[in-house]
Amino acid sequence: MDAYADRLEAAITSKSSPLCVGLDPRLDKLPADVRAAAGGDPGKALLRFGLEVLDLVAPHAACVKPNLGFFEAFGLGGLAAYAGIVAGARTRGLLVIGDGKRGDLSTTAEAYAQAHLAPGGDFEVDALTVAPYMGADSLAPFVEVAAAHGKGLYVLVRTSNPGAADLQDLDVGGARVYERTAAMVRAVGERHRGRSGLSCVGAVVGATWPEQLRALRAALPTTPFLVPGYGAQGATAADTAAAHLAGGRGAVVNASRSVTFPTPKDPTTPWRAAVEAAARAAKEELDAARRRVV
Amino acid sequence: MDAYADRLEAAITSKSSPLCVGLDPRLDKLPADVRAAAGGDPGKALLRFGLEVLDLVAPHAACVKPNLGFFEAFGLGGLAAYAGIVAGARTRGLLVIGDGKRGDLSTTAEAYAQAHLAPGGDFEVDALTVAPYMGADSLAPFVEVAAAHGKGLYVLVRTSNPGAADLQDLDVGGARVYERTAAMVRAVGERHRGRSGLSCVGAVVGATWPEQLRALRAALPTTPFLVPGYGAQGATAADTAAAHLAGGRGAVVNASRSVTFPTPKDPTTPWRAAVEAAARAAKEELDAARRRVV
Repeated sequence: MDAYADRLEAAITSKSSPLCVGLDPRLDKLPADVRAAAGGDPGKALLRFGLEVLDLVAPHAACVKPNLGFFEAFGLGGLAAYAGIVAGARTRGLLVIGDGKRGDLSTTAEAYAQAHLAPGGDFEVDALTVAPYMGADSLAPFVEVAAAHGKGLYVLVRTSNPGAADLQDLDVGGARVYERTAAMVRAVGERHRGRSGLSCVGAVVGATWPEQLRALRAALPTTPFLVPGYGAQGATAADTAAAHLAGGRGAVVNASRSVTFPTPKDPTTPWRAAVEAAARAAKEELDAARRRVV
Repeated sequence: MDAYADRLEAAITSKSSPLCVGLDPRLDKLPADVRAAAGGDPGKALLRFGLEVLDLVAPHAACVKPNLGFFEAFGLGGLAAYAGIVAGARTRGLLVIGDGKRGDLSTTAEAYAQAHLAPGGDFEVDALTVAPYMGADSLAPFVEVAAAHGKGLYVLVRTSNPGAADLQDLDVGGARVYERTAAMVRAVGERHRGRSGLSCVGAVVGATWPEQLRALRAALPTTPFLVPGYGAQGATAADTAAAHLAGGRGAVVNASRSVTFPTPKDPTTPWRAAVEAAARAAKEELDAARRRVV
């Protein structure tokens, strides 16, 4: 299989879209017709909604990012829905980033990597988000499994929330903790680059921190970025431009609630039309921002 | 329900044991008879082994700590085994720490907390391990759910691996990152203390770092500790003494492989007898170390 970064770049180019649609389905926000058709079964409702959203956004998104937490919340039935959605994304030709923020040591890290990145598993996706607190040796087993199977990782570097500052911004003698995390990401990923020149080890960098985004982009010229914070969290399409390398390469921008639970100007808009329109609009403005990066 | 810390202290006292048995079942290491009885179904093998281990260690352990990664690796069938084991632990009167090292923001953090700490879910446990990189606001939803249901958390503060030093040891102007994490743990947990005086928000601190363990114990006098590193990872029972508060309170010490996959002196020892003996021996030496803390 081609390297993850190469497959993602091809998807961005062929769809003219750096949009990643995040699937964060809260049961109480699902459309009434979806809930009714599921007959009160949370897992069935999540699966039905997820597959419908995949159909609606597939023309506009380079990839999708289901968040494991929202499925895990409903136990085995919820995770069966997650498995159904990642399989459904594959048949629709959409790349999938499993947003699990997993992290552990040694054989446990390897077990998580097998769970999400090895071929054939229920939860197999194209890339997984991982947490860096335990250090480089905790990332290594993830990197090995990813590289072996043409898969990717996104390590949390600079998250989009206000509390990101608590640990990530601490000054460690002229640099910040998140910059040290970035250096670690670069070091563990350097050996594993695809034909595009981009590594299989990416970074999560929030668009809500424009200065840090710019500095990290410069410091990590071969690292794919996954950029949260656009849309409901407040960052604009213009803010996301700093995530891209020259030629508009190297980043996808996530939109979750603003696409899957949009607030259309005309509140009588049927939800499917509203989701499709929101995905299209996000794609268009994000791609315009991307193309301005020369 | 009583506060988690109170329930755990009661278990440590009534069993005369600060032992936490970690369940990290690797399929290729399971006893041949367990694998044969499961007929090649990985989930069934994990469940069968887990329930047998619960029976063997129940007299000796204050709690058990199944690691989600080893179950997630086998997809839905693996997680069904996890659900069966946590339910089995409950019926055996064993407290369960779900070792998931979860972490996310806002409603996603709340979703994970619901998944693992709210009553009635497939994955309901007594406490969950969580990762701190995203900051205090990422921990807050976990703390709220835990406090509301008499459940607990253990935040990664100082992990037991060599790479722990990469980020956790960085000098942030007279303190280390892990000390700042510790301060965050104390701050988010301070309001939620049980009758024992101990908080529902605990800390993971490796016994492989004796100096840091001692310093953190002094800095966190109301924080329950979950202490990995004893046994297969090299820390001794004597090393774990520093984890306890006066009176031998406030900590459980994890042993995984050294109990569940022991290497008995007589290699012909049946595996069940070997596991039982390893749990008993670990309990005895850990409790002796605990009782010396006055």
